[in-house]
Amino acid sequence: MTLSTPNVLELTSGGVTSPAGFRTAGVSAGIKARGGLDLALLVSDRPAQAAAVFTTNLVQAAPVVVSREHLAKSNGIARAILVNSGCANACTGESGLRVAQEMAVETASVVGCAPEHVLVASTGVIGVALDIEKIRAALPAAMRELAADQGAAAARAIMTTDPFPKEAAARISIGGREITIGGMAKGSGMIEPRMATMLAFITTDAAVPQPLLSRALREAVDETFNAITVDGDCSTNDCVMLLANGAGNATVDETSYGIFLQGLRAVCLRLALEIVRGGEGATKLVTINVSGAASTAEARQAAKTIANSLLVKTAIHGGDPNWGRLIAAAGRANVAFDPSRATVMIGTVVLFKDGRPYDEAAPQAANYLKNKELTILVDLGVGNASSSVWTCDLSADYVRINADYRT
Amino acid sequence: MTLSTPNVLELTSGGVTSPAGFRTAGVSAGIKARGGLDLALLVSDRPAQAAAVFTTNLVQAAPVVVSREHLAKSNGIARAILVNSGCANACTGESGLRVAQEMAVETASVVGCAPEHVLVASTGVIGVALDIEKIRAALPAAMRELAADQGAAAARAIMTTDPFPKEAAARISIGGREITIGGMAKGSGMIEPRMATMLAFITTDAAVPQPLLSRALREAVDETFNAITVDGDCSTNDCVMLLANGAGNATVDETSYGIFLQGLRAVCLRLALEIVRGGEGATKLVTINVSGAASTAEARQAAKTIANSLLVKTAIHGGDPNWGRLIAAAGRANVAFDPSRATVMIGTVVLFKDGRPYDEAAPQAANYLKNKELTILVDLGVGNASSSVWTCDLSADYVRINADYRT
Repeated sequence: MTLSTPNVLELTSGGVTSPAGFRTAGVSAGIKARGGLDLALLVSDRPAQAAAVFTTNLVQAAPVVVSREHLAKSNGIARAILVNSGCANACTGESGLRVAQEMAVETASVVGCAPEHVLVASTGVIGVALDIEKIRAALPAAMRELAADQGAAAARAIMTTDPFPKEAAARISIGGREITIGGMAKGSGMIEPRMATMLAFITTDAAVPQPLLSRALREAVDETFNAITVDGDCSTNDCVMLLANGAGNATVDETSYGIFLQGLRAVCLRLALEIVRGGEGATKLVTINVSGAASTAEARQAAKTIANSLLVKTAIHGGDPNWGRLIAAAGRANVAFDPSRATVMIGTVVLFKDGRPYDEAAPQAANYLKNKELTILVDLGVGNASSSVWTCDLSADYVRINADYRT
Repeated sequence: MTLSTPNVLELTSGGVTSPAGFRTAGVSAGIKARGGLDLALLVSDRPAQAAAVFTTNLVQAAPVVVSREHLAKSNGIARAILVNSGCANACTGESGLRVAQEMAVETASVVGCAPEHVLVASTGVIGVALDIEKIRAALPAAMRELAADQGAAAARAIMTTDPFPKEAAARISIGGREITIGGMAKGSGMIEPRMATMLAFITTDAAVPQPLLSRALREAVDETFNAITVDGDCSTNDCVMLLANGAGNATVDETSYGIFLQGLRAVCLRLALEIVRGGEGATKLVTINVSGAASTAEARQAAKTIANSLLVKTAIHGGDPNWGRLIAAAGRANVAFDPSRATVMIGTVVLFKDGRPYDEAAPQAANYLKNKELTILVDLGVGNASSSVWTCDLSADYVRINADYRT
């Protein structure tokens, strides 16, 4: 759970407006049935290099399609991001696509830029039409409220039923010049009744050439957002967007790429873990470490299989040091695994090793499982590769929340 | 949910002793902490052709290892099967293997056959030693009670916390001669706290050459036991064993293979559906049909992804006609899928077709979801292949049952 923080990196409070040259606003557009903030506007004072990763679901929401098109058309330049909550604009056909395009056109008009320099994102109910008139009416207010101290309002405006907003920022030093990376995120996989989507928006005042920016985002996301799971479901709207506007007077090149990536990864990991911690019904944040694997990909696959096992998640919820479920999940993960050389540890307590159980240690492990943050290790006993995945427990509250018919 | 039953086939009440020449017993050996029947003995009066399929989990329980060895050593001949509940004898190392071997030796001694003509199975807690003395002490009583009317006792003796015993039988006609297929099963995937295992035992008085018997079992299991899922977990002890003793005076050959397979499949399907119906916390039995797939394997994969989605299972539990979750699950199933040509139906109600939602039909679908047996269809819109998978809903009871520390 501890972040690996090099000396030159400092995690700070703050969010998307911590880097210089970014302003944001969160307003109420009346999209959420129950009211509240539901529209966030993020603007870079100058054109920013932009990179994004989108859901791999074959069903892609209209804003995902439009943002991808705009990034291609603008060669990775963006000025603004408009995000609404309360409606996912997914499975809405041609009219949904037009609404997503209109979101960009309207934003471009108030910000004063080309529509292809606007990225859009939506989160909420699938299969329901998004009313562009509500967004059109609310945009002038968002533009008026746009400020460098409105990060918290924006982070709230992108929430659906997230229990709390998620922000993170890091300062890093590049060639003696300090730059900042900030971010906000919402969601926990696809966990809410007819609500969907994990969204994250990250800003930096470093100048980062687009190819390096895209590479850094892919690398950072792979070990953070792509390494968390609440319920194994992947939404139609997931995206992580990263803007680099160069307002900080430091440029990231191949030499400083490593340190920039570390800072970006630290912000992504903090946001990703906050998403898991705020998972529907979650009471515990669990790190699943898999070692002794034949490859990193196999380690990740075993860790994901363990993290998504209902039996593992319910055992953790109940505080049951049930190593049989951990080893059984590893055994069905379709990876190389030698049970006779495997090790299972809950916290620092060895429960299975060299083919034999250590059930006398169960009370000690049960005591450890009372903590809110847990680490579990399964060594597959075949190689040297390892991987970590973060998940939460499965509670009766998860079922209650997701079984309720939307009212 | 309806069984495809050819004219020549009749599903009947009964179980493993419905075919001629099989006797069984269920006794209490004191293995289950709370008492009750926990040891089942199934004996064929004459040597039977035997076939079995075992768990694909890399962690294989001792009885799985021993039964596999015995089938190889005996060239697929068996006289008896001994099954205990209350202890899985899994992850128990060398001493566990010796206990499983002893189970066969002791059974062979009371039945009067070679040890390799005995198959063994265990179900219950993983990682706990099985006391062979309890089994040794109880075997004479089992032998005394062995009878053709003890099928119900045996079906109870293999249960762990199954809510009810599972038996099925079918009569089929081969060349004018009637033969019978009977079976019993327990479990629902790997759903109980530190309990594991789906077990099924099937008998027939047809004479079936071993290669045909193995082929029929593989084919029947693939479309029945391998097409059900309660929680996506695969146990260390799963097995299906089939004995054919030829007491019915009819022989299955290539010509009559098809009708034998139909009968076997009908018995397997009935038992498999009973397992799902009795899944921990389950309140609904759901058929997931996927059509329009590029291949049968892809149809199965999409159906399994949908069936294992926590969001789908909780929506069904809550009676929410949430087609967005169905289409999102299909979209992440790693199969060819064209959302613009896809169809989603709950019962006979179309909720999504040709790229557009039919939300006006939601109340009708919600009403249908009040039934205890449900059918859901997702057409992937790309090909002609289809597959069915059976699952149950996910309730808060599932979490409560599986989160409880064993007491």
